[in-house]
Amino acid sequence: MSARAGIVVTGTEVLTGRIQDRNGPWIAERLLELGVELAHITICGDRPGDIEAQLRFLAAEGVDLIVTTGGLGPTADDMTVATVARFCGRELVLDSRVEDMIADIVAGLMVRFPNVDPEAIRAANRKQALIPEGAHVLDPVGTAPGVVVPGKPTVVVLPGPPRELQPMWKVAVQTPAVQEAIAHRTAYRQETVRMFGLPESGLADTLRDAEHRVTGFDRLEITTCLRRGEIEIVTRYEPDDAGAYADLMTLLRERHGNDIFSEDGSTVDEQVARLLTGRWIATAESCTAGLLAARLTERPGSSAYVAGGVVSYSNQAKSELLGVDPGLIETHGAVSEPVAEAMAAGAMRRFGADTAIAITGIAGPGGGTPEKPVGTVCFSLMLADGRTVTRTLQLPGNRADVRERSTTVAMHLLRRALAGDGA
Amino acid sequence: MSARAGIVVTGTEVLTGRIQDRNGPWIAERLLELGVELAHITICGDRPGDIEAQLRFLAAEGVDLIVTTGGLGPTADDMTVATVARFCGRELVLDSRVEDMIADIVAGLMVRFPNVDPEAIRAANRKQALIPEGAHVLDPVGTAPGVVVPGKPTVVVLPGPPRELQPMWKVAVQTPAVQEAIAHRTAYRQETVRMFGLPESGLADTLRDAEHRVTGFDRLEITTCLRRGEIEIVTRYEPDDAGAYADLMTLLRERHGNDIFSEDGSTVDEQVARLLTGRWIATAESCTAGLLAARLTERPGSSAYVAGGVVSYSNQAKSELLGVDPGLIETHGAVSEPVAEAMAAGAMRRFGADTAIAITGIAGPGGGTPEKPVGTVCFSLMLADGRTVTRTLQLPGNRADVRERSTTVAMHLLRRALAGDGA
Repeated sequence: MSARAGIVVTGTEVLTGRIQDRNGPWIAERLLELGVELAHITICGDRPGDIEAQLRFLAAEGVDLIVTTGGLGPTADDMTVATVARFCGRELVLDSRVEDMIADIVAGLMVRFPNVDPEAIRAANRKQALIPEGAHVLDPVGTAPGVVVPGKPTVVVLPGPPRELQPMWKVAVQTPAVQEAIAHRTAYRQETVRMFGLPESGLADTLRDAEHRVTGFDRLEITTCLRRGEIEIVTRYEPDDAGAYADLMTLLRERHGNDIFSEDGSTVDEQVARLLTGRWIATAESCTAGLLAARLTERPGSSAYVAGGVVSYSNQAKSELLGVDPGLIETHGAVSEPVAEAMAAGAMRRFGADTAIAITGIAGPGGGTPEKPVGTVCFSLMLADGRTVTRTLQLPGNRADVRERSTTVAMHLLRRALAGDGA
Repeated sequence: MSARAGIVVTGTEVLTGRIQDRNGPWIAERLLELGVELAHITICGDRPGDIEAQLRFLAAEGVDLIVTTGGLGPTADDMTVATVARFCGRELVLDSRVEDMIADIVAGLMVRFPNVDPEAIRAANRKQALIPEGAHVLDPVGTAPGVVVPGKPTVVVLPGPPRELQPMWKVAVQTPAVQEAIAHRTAYRQETVRMFGLPESGLADTLRDAEHRVTGFDRLEITTCLRRGEIEIVTRYEPDDAGAYADLMTLLRERHGNDIFSEDGSTVDEQVARLLTGRWIATAESCTAGLLAARLTERPGSSAYVAGGVVSYSNQAKSELLGVDPGLIETHGAVSEPVAEAMAAGAMRRFGADTAIAITGIAGPGGGTPEKPVGTVCFSLMLADGRTVTRTLQLPGNRADVRERSTTVAMHLLRRALAGDGA
């Protein structure tokens, strides 16, 4: 029996859908890496009664570890620490070391706001220095400290902002209380395979066959997920079942070898970044309007291979900035393969690049015609050696979906062309 | 006492963070609009035991309505309907009308996949036609029907894909069972105020004063949230407390009038789109690399005012495509106000625009210096009448944060300049 955990996400703004929770999924992945089984994520508002009900529920379900996120701010609606203390049957005590630490941090921030009453600030921050008796303090990354309260279950209390939560989680995991709570975790292996270009039902068919053909298939915990047009297959298994996983992989490669682009968990973004090393790429984007350039530059160090791009949203921009012949646009339309090719050629020339990619399409909701309905997108990829790959696809979904999916298609065109296995 | 609801989100891929749940937030908003109070969202994997534990928890918390999402597919790991039936103490019965309806839908889909065994498909879909006795069937939008099971609580079972769930929710709400479950809802009002440029602690200070100065303040349910550098204040109240809300707004306007940019729930994106009507805008982006252009074109119809943009990631691109004097870059550095201004002027000229905005900064993690640390970002906004607004800011966070925050700052520069209230 593996160690089990639950996550309590607090915050009315998350519960009501005004902001999307990024912490639950992030902690879920960390727990998975540790081999701790996540049973439940629960989300509630800032009401102490609801938070406490969720803590009691998770404890009753027998989890070894509870991680809470949010509700550590200076305002009165932030009640998580007090609620956890009551749940754990511990008094709140003022930790003067923590109080001084917060005061120092806040003093630095307040230099820019001389009109705020310092005594009011100090009162607010004293609230944040109240710690459940006997708890381990997680020093603040922002202004809010977290705590680890030992017990059965052990409760880790973390702040809401992801850039504070993430480094504080790493500290929390090292505390004796958390190590003890997760001592019975199972050493699972987890492998990820990514495919592009296969319908999900085709994979389902192969997995049904695998039930008969792969010995030990039922001991592999497989989840498949269609995301951004890619299929992700995640398999968890205990080390003894590595043979079954190897047999499954043999079957997948036999059936879908052309569609598998990653067996080591690497993403298309990582692969394209690696393939672009030593190259100099330029983009020409119409319907995606900068999303591809932004995606190519998400990674530190991308300035070594990204020259830049043109967002040629108007036809005039296509002609003026990329040198696309206006006659070409008039003859074939702005969303056409000849225009996509001219855009790529223009970007290559204007940026002095050796790799260029162009996207022009109809993201909708307006602008579709019977011949070119919404979702029609033309791509052209050009390399300095003269190779050109041009494609027109029909992409599903709404405006945002078409724009995002177009960006993903462009990444795969790049990957295939640069890896030299055709497209 | 208002009607209360809970949402159960099922799916291992959601629990483990591999896909982000979009249904919980969407249903949360719909419940809010109806005046139903959402107490909890719970997320679990595809295990019947965990799903049932969450249903029992919500029932024990006294909710009137439970909405479940996901787990209605044809594969064996989709168990939601069977689990809900057991929880509600009802038998599953085959609904032949539903069975025929699914068969018709699937027959249409399978035309493209002639090699799949039709008998296997039919067996899989028979599972989806098993309905809890006495439940109301929600006809499928995709291939999976939903159900409404009357009782205390009433349970609405919806599929996972948002484009199926959303229309089916609208049907579910109209059923007598749901109408009865939410009969005691309260007609809340909800107002949203958005601010930019104020630290959260400054607002906390004002809200503490409001406790004394605003009669009925304790009956306002206020949540504040810092997001993308903006503070969002959402207040819910019963209609009788409108006076208290009006008094709170008077106080907020007195103290923070300059920072409030929205009192009607509108976002900066909506305001900028409105202000750009009749204009022609071009962007020049370095560190944000297309994120601003992509944001400006998120809205349908933006081609009426977005000319395009240049992602001038390399210095060469700044000179070649935007006409920035290389000497200027050498003297002041690529991240400097003179270069930002030259980029904006270049974009204005190259796109024939009447509004141009440039961003150049150090998103990190590398590239910082003692004079220009990571997070230093220069902005320049230029209008055809000669007005120019140039600013250098120091933005917090990691690479992604700096890039996103820069985009938001640019939107606010645009808003202020175009609304004519200076910047």
